[in-house]
Amino acid sequence: MPRTSSPSVDRTSSLDLLLRVERGAAPLRAQVEEQLRDAVRSGRLAPGLALPSSRSLARELGVSRGVVVDAYAQLAAEGYLLATQGAPTRVSEAAIPAALAAAPPGADQPPRFDFRPGGPDVSLFPRAAWLGSLRRALRDAPDSRLDYGDPRGAPELRAALTRYLGRARGVHGDPERVVITSGMAQGMALFARALVARGARRIGMEDPSSTPGREQLIANGLEVLPVPVDADGLSVDRLEQLAPSAVFTAPAHQFPLGVVLAPARRTALIDWATRAGAFVLEDDYDAEYRYDRPPVGAVQGLAPDRVLYAGSVSKTLAPGLRLGWMVVPDRLADAVVAAKASDDLGTPVVEQLALADFLERGELDRHLRRTRSVYRARRDALVTALARELPDCPPGGVAAGLHLVVPLPAGADEAAVLARARSRGVGLYGLSEHRIEPGPPALLLGYGRITEPAIGAAVAELAAAVRYGA
Amino acid sequence: MPRTSSPSVDRTSSLDLLLRVERGAAPLRAQVEEQLRDAVRSGRLAPGLALPSSRSLARELGVSRGVVVDAYAQLAAEGYLLATQGAPTRVSEAAIPAALAAAPPGADQPPRFDFRPGGPDVSLFPRAAWLGSLRRALRDAPDSRLDYGDPRGAPELRAALTRYLGRARGVHGDPERVVITSGMAQGMALFARALVARGARRIGMEDPSSTPGREQLIANGLEVLPVPVDADGLSVDRLEQLAPSAVFTAPAHQFPLGVVLAPARRTALIDWATRAGAFVLEDDYDAEYRYDRPPVGAVQGLAPDRVLYAGSVSKTLAPGLRLGWMVVPDRLADAVVAAKASDDLGTPVVEQLALADFLERGELDRHLRRTRSVYRARRDALVTALARELPDCPPGGVAAGLHLVVPLPAGADEAAVLARARSRGVGLYGLSEHRIEPGPPALLLGYGRITEPAIGAAVAELAAAVRYGA
Repeated sequence: MPRTSSPSVDRTSSLDLLLRVERGAAPLRAQVEEQLRDAVRSGRLAPGLALPSSRSLARELGVSRGVVVDAYAQLAAEGYLLATQGAPTRVSEAAIPAALAAAPPGADQPPRFDFRPGGPDVSLFPRAAWLGSLRRALRDAPDSRLDYGDPRGAPELRAALTRYLGRARGVHGDPERVVITSGMAQGMALFARALVARGARRIGMEDPSSTPGREQLIANGLEVLPVPVDADGLSVDRLEQLAPSAVFTAPAHQFPLGVVLAPARRTALIDWATRAGAFVLEDDYDAEYRYDRPPVGAVQGLAPDRVLYAGSVSKTLAPGLRLGWMVVPDRLADAVVAAKASDDLGTPVVEQLALADFLERGELDRHLRRTRSVYRARRDALVTALARELPDCPPGGVAAGLHLVVPLPAGADEAAVLARARSRGVGLYGLSEHRIEPGPPALLLGYGRITEPAIGAAVAELAAAVRYGA
Repeated sequence: MPRTSSPSVDRTSSLDLLLRVERGAAPLRAQVEEQLRDAVRSGRLAPGLALPSSRSLARELGVSRGVVVDAYAQLAAEGYLLATQGAPTRVSEAAIPAALAAAPPGADQPPRFDFRPGGPDVSLFPRAAWLGSLRRALRDAPDSRLDYGDPRGAPELRAALTRYLGRARGVHGDPERVVITSGMAQGMALFARALVARGARRIGMEDPSSTPGREQLIANGLEVLPVPVDADGLSVDRLEQLAPSAVFTAPAHQFPLGVVLAPARRTALIDWATRAGAFVLEDDYDAEYRYDRPPVGAVQGLAPDRVLYAGSVSKTLAPGLRLGWMVVPDRLADAVVAAKASDDLGTPVVEQLALADFLERGELDRHLRRTRSVYRARRDALVTALARELPDCPPGGVAAGLHLVVPLPAGADEAAVLARARSRGVGLYGLSEHRIEPGPPALLLGYGRITEPAIGAAVAELAAAVRYGA
């Protein structure tokens, strides 16, 4: 793959400049000149842009070459264009339009250390392997795949995911019931809309849980009822009392507490859903990362007709890919697919085909093997540093995932700790923002965005922020 | 990029076939044979897949080469594999797994000739140039682009589009007001939700117009009022009477009638929007294709505070990319961006960066120049054939776009003509499905999905279908 390229002069001759000349109106040269000047002034033609050769533009406009040569010369004299012997005439770099000169809003300074949870280390993204999959996808895709397609997604990916999820996560499904999404945010919206279309109004949700996820459910018409989480995961007993039409849970690795749904609770959850005629939305967001315990299969495998299984590449590959999936119970399939078709007519196809290739070649397994050891080392460094700096705050949720939970001393002011840490250059995040009902203060330490060598210094800073008020 | 490739045996030797042999169980050959047979039957090994050489698979499984040679031979005899001297053994193309053999719902036999409008010829998709852009995007993207990002889209693409749309379409905008979408379907939903959030309830829409587009507006809470279209485009007078909060229009090339909004109407439209405090949704869906007339700039350039400009790559590159954009008036920007963030947290980033590269290198201009001449030739062939076969039905909307309109004789039964054409192997589509109010019978002939050599025969068949009932 060449790292540099030399765009040929040819390229600019085909640029479409949206110029037009009218016979019998103003002189042709004046028309061309004025339109080009306006286009540069307004920023329509960007600084540095190479213009077509006078010969080529003249041919396109149906005027003599001299008309364009004169117009270019006049605008160069005025400073709008830059004419260089032997090179294309360009829009002058000095001609920066007003609108582009302003700085983009909202771009504040990033922290020195960032413990933000909820994402992988995107610098580990396997660019070369992904490019290989994109290349094969583009080479092998039948033309029809590039047209409007099945709103559920490319059949190649639905088949590959069925195999991968069956093998790696114990998901029970066939390609007909797989729907490719643009990630969990869309998946939750589709689930909510399918429920509402069936007349559902209330959904239970683990508390604490993902706040944007909760907002997504509410925005799509559901009332969200908090369901407590303890050391064994979701309180299924509470579901019996609340009697919602569905429940949202992350059984393999609860977000943000990091607990696993206990075996007896798994059975109880399915029993409840079956008796109540309710649905379970299983968020399998980062179950691939586990360090000290055997894998926990998806709950969906126990009751595929009651559980909608959802996952994505956001925690394993990169959130920027916006690529996820759902395995949908038969009863919800039509409504989910209709909502997906109405949303966007389907997810972009080339990256779907690339992911199919990536899965089928075992590249995801390879990537997970590699990154698991990176994250395990960071997790170990973090646990060690916390034991040293904050021995009275033993962390929880350390066995899996990309973050852990540090309980703060009773009475600590979570918001004040976050603010002090921030002033010391540490991006720190609390449990409160994910709670529906209030609860004890705690920190969430994500290790997707902090490297192993930085962890010691970062924990020293955060410990200082914790101890300051104590 | 080569369109064909000779996969080296090397590549296939690394395939993980998920085969395993157990010593002391069934004979080794039977184990290998049975697992391969099951894998082909279930579709896990896809038709056409090149298998590892017997030597390489034997080494991987730790068995003698003869075991694999025998298993391959047996499965070739059964028709599951295809053994060719001097080439890798492949999964037989005839061995279509059950799950994939079942026709996907709604996919009946494709017609011999297909005049379906609303799409480009995806076989013209510039795969090599697009792969080049994907490669540079993956090579050059800062890591942060792969993380969750600005819901409006990658800044690189928003800047490149501002330049391109300014230059080629006369759109007035700055990157801060560009929102990348997953295509026009999503764009209409975002527009509708932003309007509803401001308290709007009614939108005018050109009649006839895109039916899925209308459904999208209705699904997102708007009442759609039909606004007639004549030879000068949208009837702005009617807007004055109806007084909706917004109007949907495709001024550069009305869909489906193919007319251009006349200069006086453009001014009147902007006057109305300004006076009424209303918004215009400008669908610039295929304005890049024009054959006999100068380009018509976007209406948005006249009133960027009243017009939301929307376009996509669906008619120029490929609908399967699901990639579009909007340039949003200030007053609607917050609501549109919030709706986009809630929908999907943003559009997939790698293809955004690829499109930015593709635009900046002039590849879209080059592709348009190439495909314009292909479509012009098809258009000419279609007009010629129609003049010969249906001289009493002079087509309209021929100057631009990817389809034209053939009025049927008064009293003709449009649905019957479509059905007869279909029975003659011609996929034919009528104007009725796009009308809100009833109107005279007419055909829409798209030439994105039919090649030039096929046009003569296809028109002869469709003319027979038209004349049959006359």
